[in-house]
Amino acid sequence: MLSSSENIEKLISELANLPGVGRKSAGRLAYHIANTPKEKIDSLISAIKNVSENIKRCKTCFTLSDGDICNICANENRNKKQIMVVENERDLLAYENVGEYKGVYHVLGGALSPLTGIGPNELKIKELMMRLKDDIEEVIIATNSSVEGETTATYLAKLIKPLNIKVTRIASGVPVGGDIENIDEVTLLRAFNGRLTL
Amino acid sequence: MLSSSENIEKLISELANLPGVGRKSAGRLAYHIANTPKEKIDSLISAIKNVSENIKRCKTCFTLSDGDICNICANENRNKKQIMVVENERDLLAYENVGEYKGVYHVLGGALSPLTGIGPNELKIKELMMRLKDDIEEVIIATNSSVEGETTATYLAKLIKPLNIKVTRIASGVPVGGDIENIDEVTLLRAFNGRLTL
Repeated sequence: MLSSSENIEKLISELANLPGVGRKSAGRLAYHIANTPKEKIDSLISAIKNVSENIKRCKTCFTLSDGDICNICANENRNKKQIMVVENERDLLAYENVGEYKGVYHVLGGALSPLTGIGPNELKIKELMMRLKDDIEEVIIATNSSVEGETTATYLAKLIKPLNIKVTRIASGVPVGGDIENIDEVTLLRAFNGRLTL
Repeated sequence: MLSSSENIEKLISELANLPGVGRKSAGRLAYHIANTPKEKIDSLISAIKNVSENIKRCKTCFTLSDGDICNICANENRNKKQIMVVENERDLLAYENVGEYKGVYHVLGGALSPLTGIGPNELKIKELMMRLKDDIEEVIIATNSSVEGETTATYLAKLIKPLNIKVTRIASGVPVGGDIENIDEVTLLRAFNGRLTL
């Protein structure tokens, strides 16, 4: 298929490479870009450029950061004695959106997956253990509840428990608004085993 | 909400302004951009720039074009005597994706909508009438089947018919794969009235 313009066609192909963007939405985005005043698109371009050229990893927690230390680690109001371990920065953002958690994070950069060759050395586990030499009160393991996430959680718990630091795992169970009849057996078993006294 | 980086935060806001992109997908896109090699992002940026800075409107059909005349109007294999009138370039692309139509297009730039102040002068109707002075065999009106699209179709048909040019309207009816029980009455009536002999 060839659209009326090669520039548009090229932009559609580029946009369709982005995660979650199919050819149809890429087309809609391309036409939006063509029909939007240049100044607005310039500010989009400079935002993309700033991220692509200047973003770093925080030297403490390894999330994306503008400087050597990210805004969360640099924030004096955050409790540095509570560390939530997440797989990636999207999970961190999901928890930040909730707004309840006031501790800091540690971004592993993935989860243990022997099949695809991701072992402890591929993740920021050594770096996490270094952080635990300080006075830490709790490590909250918030990896996904996938096989890889669970394996990682078990592995980390075994490493950290001997240090006499409280290790917790985020709860697994029926999602809010979820229909019990549609939920898989493993989740229901977890929900049952993790039941709380009212 | 503040993410760990102001650059990321700014990019998320910019991306969330795009049509069909919510804050959640904007976040996913921003992290993808941060984690993608600079060269790949540079080619995305230059594609956006090329469209934003260089795109024009075809002087014949008013779709988006790299030069004064778009690739479709410049294509010698397209039948210049058949003109499909569409509301915008996204509708043109939808028909191009089908690949069946071999004529040319005319992009109105919207549909008549007295309530929002869009009259015949706001659309490329005068320009369409100019094109009809050439030897044209058929005008296919492919505006949407919304109230505005139907109004525009009726208006154009009234203008064009006296010129002794065949005017057609794309068929309206049950979409392929559509469940009759879930389809509105107006569409069903059209499907009935437009029934074809097998």
